[in-house]
Formats: sequence, structure tokens, C-alpha cells
Amino acid sequence: MSPFRATPPLTKSWEHFGFTVDDGVATLTFDRPDKLNALTFDVYADLRDLVLELPHRGDVRVLVITGRGRGFCSGGDVEEIIGELQKMETAELLEFTRMTGAVVKALRETPIPVIAAVNGIAAGAGSVIALASDFRLLARSAKFAFLFTKVGLAGADMGAAYLLPRLVGLGRATELLMLGDKLESARAETIGLASQVVEDEELPAAAQALARRLADGPALAYSTTKVLLTRELDTDLGGAIELEAITQALLMTAKDHKEFYAAWTAGRSPQWTGR
Amino acid sequence: MSPFRATPPLTKSWEHFGFTVDDGVATLTFDRPDKLNALTFDVYADLRDLVLELPHRGDVRVLVITGRGRGFCSGGDVEEIIGELQKMETAELLEFTRMTGAVVKALRETPIPVIAAVNGIAAGAGSVIALASDFRLLARSAKFAFLFTKVGLAGADMGAAYLLPRLVGLGRATELLMLGDKLESARAETIGLASQVVEDEELPAAAQALARRLADGPALAYSTTKVLLTRELDTDLGGAIELEAITQALLMTAKDHKEFYAAWTAGRSPQWTGR
Amino acid sequence: MSPFRATPPLTKSWEHFGFTVDDGVATLTFDRPDKLNALTFDVYADLRDLVLELPHRGDVRVLVITGRGRGFCSGGDVEEIIGELQKMETAELLEFTRMTGAVVKALRETPIPVIAAVNGIAAGAGSVIALASDFRLLARSAKFAFLFTKVGLAGADMGAAYLLPRLVGLGRATELLMLGDKLESARAETIGLASQVVEDEELPAAAQALARRLADGPALAYSTTKVLLTRELDTDLGGAIELEAITQALLMTAKDHKEFYAAWTAGRSPQWTGR
Repeated sequence: MSPFRATPPLTKSWEHFGFTVDDGVATLTFDRPDKLNALTFDVYADLRDLVLELPHRGDVRVLVITGRGRGFCSGGDVEEIIGELQKMETAELLEFTRMTGAVVKALRETPIPVIAAVNGIAAGAGSVIALASDFRLLARSAKFAFLFTKVGLAGADMGAAYLLPRLVGLGRATELLMLGDKLESARAETIGLASQVVEDEELPAAAQALARRLADGPALAYSTTKVLLTRELDTDLGGAIELEAITQALLMTAKDHKEFYAAWTAGRSPQWTGR
Repeated sequence: MSPFRATPPLTKSWEHFGFTVDDGVATLTFDRPDKLNALTFDVYADLRDLVLELPHRGDVRVLVITGRGRGFCSGGDVEEIIGELQKMETAELLEFTRMTGAVVKALRETPIPVIAAVNGIAAGAGSVIALASDFRLLARSAKFAFLFTKVGLAGADMGAAYLLPRLVGLGRATELLMLGDKLESARAETIGLASQVVEDEELPAAAQALARRLADGPALAYSTTKVLLTRELDTDLGGAIELEAITQALLMTAKDHKEFYAAWTAGRSPQWTGR
Repeated sequence: MSPFRATPPLTKSWEHFGFTVDDGVATLTFDRPDKLNALTFDVYADLRDLVLELPHRGDVRVLVITGRGRGFCSGGDVEEIIGELQKMETAELLEFTRMTGAVVKALRETPIPVIAAVNGIAAGAGSVIALASDFRLLARSAKFAFLFTKVGLAGADMGAAYLLPRLVGLGRATELLMLGDKLESARAETIGLASQVVEDEELPAAAQALARRLADGPALAYSTTKVLLTRELDTDLGGAIELEAITQALLMTAKDHKEFYAAWTAGRSPQWTGR
């Protein structure tokens, strides 16, 4: 557990998706397979809180997000979310859109690397959750659909209009977000949206292998890399170089870098502690 | 017409290029085919003012920019612009370069999606006008040439050194802007500069089909997507997420989103009003 | 020599790498071939000072960086740098990381275009030096390896987490910097990290040909293009357009633009002076 916990207890069990931790690897599984894992208000709220809580647990070094069944996550449920939004007043609508944005903010800002194992359709909010992850492993049959305009809403949702141009360029992001058409896995790989595409049946093993590598490796090195990648999108050249200089000096004083040198000198493999 | 018009009248006819409006689709056609549609001071000035005026008309939801004849736009006319610049004083030169920059600023900031239908060479200022559009449909025979250094000027012109790296990455932008060499349509598609390449004879129909889709669809959703894509290039992660949360809450109160839900419930297609 | 030199003399010879100047083209050759040109503290310090001094010489219009032997630059020497870091106190570590960052800052900010002729492995700091150059010509057998996490350090080093996402997108940069795996030259070209890949034996000639073109061309146009590309990564749309308007007005008053028009009028090729 984190050495700096305050009064609030850690959550014992998460009600609105599957959640397991296995030797440093946390796996979150969207679990409404009959609805292609459409999101409900409850799933959003649990997702926001889980991601914020993860670094406090002390037993998680990497998070895998995936879906049960044929879909990864088809976005907000038309009945249970869009239907309910019709009845809400302005202030409630803003509470909702801020909650969805908070999920993305938490995913980008958590010092824990996040792997989206995209096993099927990632649509609407589901596509942005994958976009906000650090790695996107796609099953061959997986698809993206930033379909917000198809329900009459802005293609800019949950930070998509910030993130997508920074992955695939402004031109391609404009096309994907404005039109909302489906994107095949092969095309996602070509344009830099997918980290890797594997055969459908190989996806769980590929995701766990990458997660295992991240969990067993120099965790502080990985997590500072992620945090600086996030921050330096919003930092100028001079500030970024100073931030990296200070971070790297800090890591030179930490255990894993010393372990690298000791291992190299002794002609053996490093035993990373992540500290 | 816009409900918030002030004293200045709308322009009745544009003298320096073709301009038509057909059921929400405006089409601007550069019209000096014997000069590959090289720009004159007058064309620049009309272009700047037209783009600013468009949203005030109330009858335009999308703008298509194309060229008559073999070229899209070959940039500033060597005789009528470069020749005249030789005679100008410093303050006049700056008036000119600010005018050209104002065209790009207007194209990026207008809430109206812009399609460049690039029917032939897009060179110099012509290449930047296409670059500042939201979609770039290219004829197979079309080419780009950011040829500014070839006339002894900075490859950074009209915002090109801001926009191009955000579409194709800093490495490729450096090469294109510093060297100024021609870029074939297929390569433009590979690097994310072209949205789509079609056979030459199919370009007008492809451009009108995309324009029709944008004009007939949820216009407020499209236009907010465009505006946020523009703004979020200059916004940090937290600000971008808040901007999207507020925008999306606003759109949830608007007609088209309600229409989506009503149509979905009734099992019919939505009838978008763009409001 | 620069008209604005102060008291410090120009350095007569550089001790820690090869350095020659030939008719406007400076060539820096890493010269520890038995160590794949691993860096020492001395090489870093000379590199930092050389890049800052170059514009003051007055005889250099382009810089080529390459390596002698099989490697381009394998990064910090494990014995001579990593071994020594183990003995240093915090303040010294920060002096070191700031020095390495200063090399990248100088490469990005110098008004002189920089060509990395990557003749073999570019690893760790070597990969970032290539990344901070304006052009990257790769030998077919060259490889990149942003291997910082493999020595237990942050993948964000010397500005890599700022630069790489701006060349290849955030997704690909995350993968490369977090995992630190090798990248083949063909893949580097596909994702926009390599400007061009040539056969190994053709690399020196290709690099010198590009350097010659830049040295013989309109140098002020090239150098302002580079400087604005660097600056506009950190400038918003409106500021970028104003910066380009002012720069371009300035260049319209300079010799090379006038020479272009005079040459065009006379039907001859321009004789660039770079002024």
C-alpha cells in the first residue's frame, strides 16, 4: 500500500466490471457482453475512481483494460445513458460530461502504464478509453468508431480532439472525428493508432505478455517515461529538457539504475525492483 | 442570415473567383486557369473577406475550394505579386504577409468545415490554403509543392511551419518546407496530408458527395468538432478535457441530439436540422 | 566570422571528435570506432560548445553529424559514463543531465540546419542526437534504440519525450521510449523518423549531396525555416501566423528574394548568396 494513505479506505470490490490483480498486473474487464459492454453511469463512475485509486494500492504496476465477449466497449448505452440524458437539466449534463472527461484525465495522468487489449468494437467512449491508454493491442477483428457525430454530438468528447491529432496527425483526426466512420484494425496500425494487431485468439496472451514485461521490469523508469510523455505534450522545448534533466538525475540515484551497472559489471542480468 | 448582423451589408458578388451556393454547399473556384490559378492581391483579399463573411450568411454549412483547369492554385503570381513586392516598402510588405496569414487564420477558425478539392498543382500559397482546409481530396495527378525556399523566402509562410508538423510530423515537415520539392498525391496520402486520392475525373463528384454529407448532417456537431480540433492544438490536456465537457453538455441540450434519440426509439433515421 | 563576436576566441581544434569545414559544410565525426562511438563526458562537452559556437564562425551553413566505423553513436559509455555516475552526488548528476539536455537544445535552436548521417547503430543519447537533427539519412543497416529503460532510467532523456511524439505520434513514441527496443531503418522510414534510407556505401555521398544543396542554396531562407519550425511547436496558431508574417516580410527585403525575381525576369538561375 502507498506510504501516504489518508483516511479513505481502499475499495474492496468493484461492482461494475471485472477486476483482478495478479502479481503486479491489474486486469479490468468490461462485463456486459450482451450489450457489447456498453457503459452505464455506474461503470463510468467506477472507472474514474479505480484509476485514481490504483497507485495507492501498492500492488499494481500495470493495468490491462479489455472486454468480455465480442466487443471491447461500445460506448454509452443508448437506453441507460442517452435516454437518461434527455431528462437531465444543464447542471446534471455537465456533471456527466465532466465525469467522462475525468476518466481520460486519470488514465493519462496515472503513473501506471495502461494497456488496452481491444478485443472487438471500440466505439464512442470505448474508443476514447482505448485512445487514452498507453498501448493499444488490437485483435484482427477489432474496430474503432469515434461515432459521436452520428448521435448528433461533437466528435470532440472526453479529450478525443486533443489526443487523436497527437497520435495520427490533424488531417486524419479530423476525418475520424468529424465523420465518425469505422476504422479497421489494419488501418489503425498503419496510421499509428494501434501499437500492434494480433490474431483474435492470441490477444489475451499478447496483452498479458506485455503487461508481465512492464510489471517485472524497471517500474520507476516506465512510469516516469509515461508521466513525462503526458506532460511534455503541454511543455515547451526548454521546459521539457529541464524536466527530463531533473527526472533523469533523480533516477540515477535510484536502485534500478545502480542494479543495472552492478549486473553489467558482474556479467549477469539485472534484477529489477522497480525502485 | 445570422441573427447577429451589424451594419455592413453582405457582399453580393465576389469578383476575383467563382462562388456559388447550392443548398448549404458553397463552392469557391479559383478562376485564372491560364495561370494555373496563380493568386493576385485581389484574390487574397477576397478570400480573406469571404471566409470571414461565410458564417454570417446563414445559408452555408460547408465550403469547397477548388480550381478551374489543370491547376488547383500555383501560389502568388510571379509578375503580379512577386514583381510588385520588389517595389514595396517594409510596412507594405508586412501588410501583405499579414493578409496572407489572415486567410489561413480564417480558414482554421471558421466554424464551417472546409474541403479542398485539389484538382492539380497546389504550390506555395496554394499548398498552404489546402493545408489549412479540414479535408484534402486529391486528384491522382495533383501535387503539393511548398516551394517558398525556391524563391528565396522562408518555408514558414502563412502558418505552414505550424500546421504541417501537426499533420505529418516534424521530420517530414522539415524536409518538405526546407527543400520545397514536389510531393505526389500517393505520397501525400501515405503521410497523412491527403484525406483521400481519387481518379482525376471523379474529383468533383467526390468533393460534392462529401460536402453534401456534411451539409445534410448534424451541422452543429460537425462545426464544434472542427472548432475544438483547431483550439485544442493550443490547449493543455486539462483545459482540453474541460472544453470538451462543456461543449458536449451544450450539444446535449440541442435539437440534433434529441432527434437522434427520438429517431432511435422510433426505429427511423434521424432528420438532422443542424441545430 | 560573425560581426558580433565578444572577447572569447573561437576554438581552434576540437579534441574529442573529428571536425572539418569544407566550403560551408561542417562535418562532425564521432571517432571512437572500437566502442561504436560511445560518448564520454568530454565528447558531450565538446558537442555542446561546438554547436553553440558554429553560428559565430561565419564559415558554416550546414552541419553533418556522422560516426566512424560500424556505429553512429552507441550512447553514454557504460564504463566511462555510467560507471562514473555511480560515484557522483546529486548536484553532479544534475550537472551531467543538464549538459546532455543542452546538446539537444543547441541542436534544435541553432539557425544552422543539421543532418544526421546515421551510418550504424544510434542508441541512447546517440538516438536522441539524431532525433534532434533536422534531417536523418539512414544507412540501410542503421538502427535506432531509445534504450534508456534497459539501463533502469527514464525513456524521457535529453528531450526525447518531447521530440519523438512530435515526429512519429504519441502512440509510437510511447512504445519506442517505454520499451527501448531496436528499430530497423525501414520501419524508421515508414513512421517518419528517417528522412531517407540509402544503401550503406551510398550514405556519405548522399549526406554530402544534401549538405551541399543546403550550403549552396538560399541559406537565410533555410535557416529561418528551421528556426520557425522549432519555435512554432511551442506557439499557438495566432502567434505562429504573426511570426511567419513578420519573418517573411523581413526576407522579402533580403538579397536572395530579390535575386530570385531578377533571375526569373532574366530567364537565368538564381545565384544565391544566403543573405
